[in-house]
Amino acid sequence: MRVAVVGATGVVGREMVRTLEERNFPAHELVLLASPRSEGKRIRFRDEEFAVRPLAPEHLRGVELSLWAAGASVSRAMVPAVAEAGTVCVDNSSAFRQDPDVPLVVPEVNPEALAGSPRIVANPNCTAITMIVAVAPLHRAAGLRSVVVSSYQSVSGAGMKAILELADQVEKLHGTEEQLVRPDHEALPVGEVFGRTIAFNVLPLQGGVEGDWTGEERKLMAEPRKILGIPDLEVHATVVRVPVVTGHSVSVYATFARPITPDQAREALANAPGVRVVDDPASGLYPTPLDAAGTDDVLVGRIRQAEGRDDALLLFACGDNLRKGAALNAVQIAEKLFR
Amino acid sequence: MRVAVVGATGVVGREMVRTLEERNFPAHELVLLASPRSEGKRIRFRDEEFAVRPLAPEHLRGVELSLWAAGASVSRAMVPAVAEAGTVCVDNSSAFRQDPDVPLVVPEVNPEALAGSPRIVANPNCTAITMIVAVAPLHRAAGLRSVVVSSYQSVSGAGMKAILELADQVEKLHGTEEQLVRPDHEALPVGEVFGRTIAFNVLPLQGGVEGDWTGEERKLMAEPRKILGIPDLEVHATVVRVPVVTGHSVSVYATFARPITPDQAREALANAPGVRVVDDPASGLYPTPLDAAGTDDVLVGRIRQAEGRDDALLLFACGDNLRKGAALNAVQIAEKLFR
Repeated sequence: MRVAVVGATGVVGREMVRTLEERNFPAHELVLLASPRSEGKRIRFRDEEFAVRPLAPEHLRGVELSLWAAGASVSRAMVPAVAEAGTVCVDNSSAFRQDPDVPLVVPEVNPEALAGSPRIVANPNCTAITMIVAVAPLHRAAGLRSVVVSSYQSVSGAGMKAILELADQVEKLHGTEEQLVRPDHEALPVGEVFGRTIAFNVLPLQGGVEGDWTGEERKLMAEPRKILGIPDLEVHATVVRVPVVTGHSVSVYATFARPITPDQAREALANAPGVRVVDDPASGLYPTPLDAAGTDDVLVGRIRQAEGRDDALLLFACGDNLRKGAALNAVQIAEKLFR
Repeated sequence: MRVAVVGATGVVGREMVRTLEERNFPAHELVLLASPRSEGKRIRFRDEEFAVRPLAPEHLRGVELSLWAAGASVSRAMVPAVAEAGTVCVDNSSAFRQDPDVPLVVPEVNPEALAGSPRIVANPNCTAITMIVAVAPLHRAAGLRSVVVSSYQSVSGAGMKAILELADQVEKLHGTEEQLVRPDHEALPVGEVFGRTIAFNVLPLQGGVEGDWTGEERKLMAEPRKILGIPDLEVHATVVRVPVVTGHSVSVYATFARPITPDQAREALANAPGVRVVDDPASGLYPTPLDAAGTDDVLVGRIRQAEGRDDALLLFACGDNLRKGAALNAVQIAEKLFR
C-alpha cells in the first residue's frame, strides 16, 4: 500500500510518520510531501530514510491513502482533485469539517460516519477531539445537553515555530522570574507566532477573529454537534493558549438530559476506549498535559457533581494534541477505512 | 497612626508595605512582624528601613491597624485576641471569611459591609476578588444567576517558594522544549510546593482536597455569594495552576435574570471602579495576566454573548493576585475604615 503524508516535516506530519510506524500500518511505500523549502530533508520510517519531495499532484498518483497536515488553504486547493483521482484523503485541516458530504470522525465515537467508503474524511480540531473523547461516554450514559468549556492549549498546536518561540522567550525571561511580580511591560519579548508574550503568560485569543469569537472557539462549538450527532447541543467555549509544549487540556461543565453521578461517569469512562480515568484527588491523582504528552489516551479526572444539580458534572481532560488530537486520530481513521 | 504588617517578609506582606507607601497611607510608624526565622531582616518603607520582629502579641500593643498575611492557622490563633485588645485586623487568610460576624469585603463591590466599625475584616481569596470585580457591575446591570468559572492561577499565589520552584524547574527543562513533545515522564522535575511539575504544565488540583473538591474551589464558590449578597448564586468552579509568575485569570460563563448584551456589559464595566475594559479582539486587544501584573485594575475582555441566549455572557478577566487580589484590596479596606 502506498501512503502519502502531506506536510511531512511539520510537527503533526512527523507525528503521522511515527504513528504509522508504531501502529505497524501496512504502508509498503511512504511518499513524503512538503513545501518546496523542505525539499531534500530526509525522514526515517522503519529502517529506511525517505526523501521529502515538494507537494505536487503527480507525486500522489497511485497513492491509496494520503494524510494531510498542510493547512486549510493547501487542503482546499488540492484535496478534492486528489480524492477525485482515487486517493483517500484524511485531512487534518479545518477545510472540510463542516462540509455535509465529508464525515468528521473520532473513531471511538462515530465510526459509523465512515460507512460508504468516503474519499475525503476530516480529522477534527485537536481540542475538540480531547473534549469529545471525554464527554462522548457520558453522552451515551445520560444524554448531553450543554457544555461550557475553557481550554488550556499547548503551543505545539501552532507548530514547531511556536515551540521555538516559547523556548526563545523562556531564554530571555528565565532568571528574572522574581521580577515578573512587577514586570517591565515594555521589555517583554514578543514573537511572530503569538504576537504577544507566551512565556509565563496565558493568551485568551487564538485563531483568527470572527466577530467577538475566534476561529478556534467556533470549531470547538461546531464540531461536537456534528461528531456527537446532537445538532442543538449548546457549547460555550473559551480558547486559551498556555505555555505548555504539548498536551491540550479542557475544563468542562456539562449538563445532561438525565441524572448522572461522578461514580456513574467514572464507570462509563473506565469502559470507554481511548480514555484513561485519572481521578483520585485525595491520593494526588489527576490529569495534567505533561502526563498526556507522548501517550495515546485522553486522561480524564477531577470529576465532580455540580452543586445543587443531579444532572450536571464538571471534569478536566488532557490529551496529546499531536497524537490523539491529530496524527493518531488520522491513522485510526485510516485503519477503519482500510482494514 | 501605628500600622502593623503581619507576615511582612512574604510576597503578599512585602506588597502590603509597598502599597501602603504607594497610596500614601497615613502610617507614621510601621511594625513589621514575621516568623522567628525572618527576624533581623530589614524592609524599606518610604525613606526608612524597618527591622522585622518575631510575631508576638506584645508587638501589636498600641497598633491601630494590622494587615495579616500570615496564613489561616496563625490568624485563627491570634487575630481574635488582638482585635479584642483594640487593633483593627484586616485578615488576608481564609480563617474568618465565612464567619457571619466578619465582613468579607471588596471595597468597590460591598463597602456597606464595613458599617459599624468592625474590628476584624476578611480579605477575600485572590481569584474570587478578580472574578467578583469583573462580574459585580454585570450583576448590578442584569441580576447574576449563575457562574461557571475556570481559573488560570499564577504561582505567586502560593508564595515566594513557589516562584523559586517554577524558576528551578524552568532551569532544568529549558533547552529541552522540543523533546517535551514526547517527555521522559520519569525525569521530570518535581518540587515541594506543587508536588508535580509546574513548568510547561498546568495543575488542575490546588489547595487541600475536601471530598471531590479542593479548598480553592470551595472558596471560589462560597465567597461570591457572601460578597455579592446572593445566597443562592450557583457557582461551578475549577481551579487550575499555570506557569505564570503573577496574575490570576478567570474564564467566566455567567447567566443573568435579565437580558444583557456585550455592549451593555462593556458600558457597565467601563463605568465601574477598579476595572479596565481591554476588549477589541480584531485589534488584538485582550487581557493577559502579564499585562495585569504590577497594575491595580482588573482587566476584562473577550466579552461575548452566549450563542442562542440573550441572558448569558462569556468573559475573561485578569488581576494582579498580589495587589488587587491581596495587598491592595486589604489597604483599600483600611482606607475605607480609617478615612
